[in-house]
Amino acid sequence: MAFSSLKKSDSVGSTPHRKQNHPNKRKPFSKMQLLGSALGALVIAAGVTASQSNSRSRGKNTDSQPQFNASSGTRPLVHLTPNKGWMNDPNGLFYDSEASIWHAYYQYNPNDNVWGLPLYWGHATSEDLTVWEDHGAAIAPQNDESGAFSGSIIIDANNTSGFFNDSTKPAQRIVAFYTEHNATTESQYAAYSLDGGFTFEQYEHNPVLDIGSDQFRDPKVFWHEESERWVMTLALSQEYTIQIFTSENLKDWELQSNFSHHGILGYQYECPGLAKVRVERDIPLNVTSNGKTNLTTQDDGAEYKWVMFLSINPGSPAGGSVNEYFIGDFDGKTFTPQDSAARIVDHGKDFYALQTFTNAPNGDTIGIAWASNWDYCAFVPTEAWKSSMSIARNFTVRPYNPNPQSTELNLYSTPILNSTDLQTKRYLKKSSLEIGADEALKYNLGNDAQGLLEFTATWKVNGSSIPSVGDFADLSFWFTGKEDDDEYLRLGYAVNAAGFFVDRGNTDVDFVNDNPFFNNRQTQNIETYKIGTDGLPIYKVHGIIDRNIIELFFNDGSSTSTNLFFLSDGNYIGGVEITAGVEGVFTILDFEIKQLARK
Amino acid sequence: MAFSSLKKSDSVGSTPHRKQNHPNKRKPFSKMQLLGSALGALVIAAGVTASQSNSRSRGKNTDSQPQFNASSGTRPLVHLTPNKGWMNDPNGLFYDSEASIWHAYYQYNPNDNVWGLPLYWGHATSEDLTVWEDHGAAIAPQNDESGAFSGSIIIDANNTSGFFNDSTKPAQRIVAFYTEHNATTESQYAAYSLDGGFTFEQYEHNPVLDIGSDQFRDPKVFWHEESERWVMTLALSQEYTIQIFTSENLKDWELQSNFSHHGILGYQYECPGLAKVRVERDIPLNVTSNGKTNLTTQDDGAEYKWVMFLSINPGSPAGGSVNEYFIGDFDGKTFTPQDSAARIVDHGKDFYALQTFTNAPNGDTIGIAWASNWDYCAFVPTEAWKSSMSIARNFTVRPYNPNPQSTELNLYSTPILNSTDLQTKRYLKKSSLEIGADEALKYNLGNDAQGLLEFTATWKVNGSSIPSVGDFADLSFWFTGKEDDDEYLRLGYAVNAAGFFVDRGNTDVDFVNDNPFFNNRQTQNIETYKIGTDGLPIYKVHGIIDRNIIELFFNDGSSTSTNLFFLSDGNYIGGVEITAGVEGVFTILDFEIKQLARK
Repeated sequence: MAFSSLKKSDSVGSTPHRKQNHPNKRKPFSKMQLLGSALGALVIAAGVTASQSNSRSRGKNTDSQPQFNASSGTRPLVHLTPNKGWMNDPNGLFYDSEASIWHAYYQYNPNDNVWGLPLYWGHATSEDLTVWEDHGAAIAPQNDESGAFSGSIIIDANNTSGFFNDSTKPAQRIVAFYTEHNATTESQYAAYSLDGGFTFEQYEHNPVLDIGSDQFRDPKVFWHEESERWVMTLALSQEYTIQIFTSENLKDWELQSNFSHHGILGYQYECPGLAKVRVERDIPLNVTSNGKTNLTTQDDGAEYKWVMFLSINPGSPAGGSVNEYFIGDFDGKTFTPQDSAARIVDHGKDFYALQTFTNAPNGDTIGIAWASNWDYCAFVPTEAWKSSMSIARNFTVRPYNPNPQSTELNLYSTPILNSTDLQTKRYLKKSSLEIGADEALKYNLGNDAQGLLEFTATWKVNGSSIPSVGDFADLSFWFTGKEDDDEYLRLGYAVNAAGFFVDRGNTDVDFVNDNPFFNNRQTQNIETYKIGTDGLPIYKVHGIIDRNIIELFFNDGSSTSTNLFFLSDGNYIGGVEITAGVEGVFTILDFEIKQLARK
Repeated sequence: MAFSSLKKSDSVGSTPHRKQNHPNKRKPFSKMQLLGSALGALVIAAGVTASQSNSRSRGKNTDSQPQFNASSGTRPLVHLTPNKGWMNDPNGLFYDSEASIWHAYYQYNPNDNVWGLPLYWGHATSEDLTVWEDHGAAIAPQNDESGAFSGSIIIDANNTSGFFNDSTKPAQRIVAFYTEHNATTESQYAAYSLDGGFTFEQYEHNPVLDIGSDQFRDPKVFWHEESERWVMTLALSQEYTIQIFTSENLKDWELQSNFSHHGILGYQYECPGLAKVRVERDIPLNVTSNGKTNLTTQDDGAEYKWVMFLSINPGSPAGGSVNEYFIGDFDGKTFTPQDSAARIVDHGKDFYALQTFTNAPNGDTIGIAWASNWDYCAFVPTEAWKSSMSIARNFTVRPYNPNPQSTELNLYSTPILNSTDLQTKRYLKKSSLEIGADEALKYNLGNDAQGLLEFTATWKVNGSSIPSVGDFADLSFWFTGKEDDDEYLRLGYAVNAAGFFVDRGNTDVDFVNDNPFFNNRQTQNIETYKIGTDGLPIYKVHGIIDRNIIELFFNDGSSTSTNLFFLSDGNYIGGVEITAGVEGVFTILDFEIKQLARK
């Protein structure tokens, strides 16, 4: 995403004007303000320069904060963050089957902890998609006034591009496509790597695609087996159009179709991506026992469906950034959605620019998103670095009941949290918990908590005991700070609102209390997980909390919610308290929680 | 909207279970809880019964709180509220051209201040769409376990129904259509009025339409001149389908088409409505001087477009309830949208179930929405009554630039605030205000403030002075309580987020601080109002604040935001303070504010 594309008329200017406190402001922004700028200066001093930053050795940023440090403030343990500087969209995601390594690149500003030009591709690797090593800048823009904007990587095993010779193994013939952005033009560049993705050579005849537009970006390329062509999706951002091009040699691209004016439009389209996703049909439907099943959306029994991912910013109905998706079919030239509905990948505030990995094993479709929101990303209270990615997710498509009377094909997300570098420090499992309205179940997760938790809760709602509409009938999980439990993250479900809530507003952190774009509460509708043998509805949530980010997966991933939250430095989540607003309505069938740590 | 349709599995039960405080809860819900229930009991005691409530005299509710009372807590002055009890969707909106009276009906529970069965149609009238008189219940359900759910009213001037004779003037041949809801069925009923809309007779052969569904509701009927037929739109709620029926006699209805799986789906479709809306083309485009104009959506130069309104609950991307719209064409049988985009009528949290008036003069399309959200409507801190309607809005369709590179047909909303019962107590107009980063412009709106304000602000952004991304560069309007200015409503625009925010979280009211579904901040993208002669972007907002509700209209109504807010009892907005986060970026071209009062 190009910050400067947010509003051409308001585009980022030159010298900053320092902000003073307003005598009449109850909560001055000064702390938040000065932190950002002072740090910026500090990072520049230690930072790499445009010319230096594209060398591999420099890219390692040995002078910067290590990727993992138990005492490094709010830095997540299993969410990719840059060692230092600014990060936004994930780029060039691919799996190297030769080296068995996952590669993630990202929009990177090594010279400040906020977005700015020159903008690079940063680079990180992982053996398990859970624990990451950051390597710093991998691709540099053409000059200090331009940016190597978002794009993707493919494996040109058959050397259709001619960029390679036999000295490069087929599985490591890595070609990157990205948008070279400058003040007047956004054109598409190609670069290739001869060292497994750590450094890149520019294609000598760049750009490979230039239509003279200044709002034309984010190439996602993949190989379409059926038509034996390379396919590139690009956003004509301000025309709300995804253009689909094809090529035989990765150099010459032919426009095949436009996918235009679908879904929520907002200000502009960004980061489109078309992925082939496995359809799973052998899972029982969630509420069929409660209603008739009529598959109202296209389901031709195909083994795979094509999913078009699309990012919108600004202009999310919830404010700022949002990631949409469309399920349909693709014939190599045209994408045909199953219907005209607008569907959202993640209902939290902090999930944007989702991209899927090239060459993931077993035909899996695995993706990572940027876990922040352009409404407030520049002000989040981290210092040496800013922004993290989401955890990796494995996507499938399944028939699903959004309500008792329809069945739709729906995107499912399964988080990937599995590393030999992780150990379980505390484990707790409880079953058949009845909670009185005047009690709380309290669990201490240990004072050695590093802020990484995984939990699953499954609960039943006793319809015959549901209180009147005027009673607030909630089941709440209060995740409390280990140093100060007056700071907490509250999650819960309420019967009469029939929804789930995340409340991240209970903290002493100035940014949370003061920034008028950072809202405290997200709520979303969740459908029943299944109907129990006793006919009562059962709900399920699986959550991962990693220091300053929580990712929730409802009903095995039929909907998700990713949100940043901030407690005071070092006050990681160290306990959980479960309460019920009313008597006899909720039975917690299972509650399981793990406190995890890096070895 | 049917509360019980929220979740069949979680539907409203019998005896309430009182909620206790949790010893570990920082902010117990007790106050909010007990208020709702205690009041419920109180209202029941004084309330009308199912059998009594359908008589006109009883309907006047002489025992209840008057519609206007300067000291009646947070009751708005120019937003329709029920004298007592519960209100949700607007129903049966029409203009009586014979008596020159506007009629608004609404979903009404006279027996409690929360939703519940039996549910009635309440009734209110106005001479100016600004000041309302409530008359209590007008249509009763069949029994105490059923509800007269949402619907509409038409004028059967030519007596196509045969319900009337010459004793009823053509302009007052009023026929209501609504959904009779019971535990097993939702079918469509007709009723007619022989006394100008105050009482109704049931059609003897009801229902007029019953397809055996329990999720089939909210009939909106209108006369389609071109095909000389009555048209009814209905929601097959859980199948995400709007069904379009036609009739010649208002009794026999024939299915013509389905409008299915468009826009945001959420849990279900509700309150569809098709309206013929005037297209205005003689207004200069907002940012054309800043980019090319290419009308990317259908614009055939027609004088009118057809707009399909649709309500979704739960499942708004922002949480809970939301109102969508689609612009297109209608041939009397089928609605064809201009594209597959999902567009939202109002970006606030409190705007739902929008309905347009039948028979508005001059071919105007005027509508009213319910100004609350099912996520928290049962808990808002009002007592004798709960919920208000939005202010009436006049809708048009205009070409508009959502960004510099596209032009779309877009819905525009103009608020109607004009009554001889209103007087201006204070008036202030300022021009060309430059605000330093270390100063605040403070205006006292008077200690006699009754909480009703109208304001307009137009400001310019000086692109050459825009600070770095790391600075929070806001223009903020702090509307402060007259009794306690530590309680305030904050609105503003921030350059680097390129968005507008509403912060309603700065209050001592327990509901606001405690209810996890009531979020503090809404943000939205707003496009430039126009480009000044100096090439700088200009933004504009017009606002109406009425005690506990604020409605914002951006750029003459290209987007709007309606939100409830709650200060302590009697602490109406009495002052405004304007601040700028940075030096030299913002120039307020005009700021105009009126403190209004009821005579």
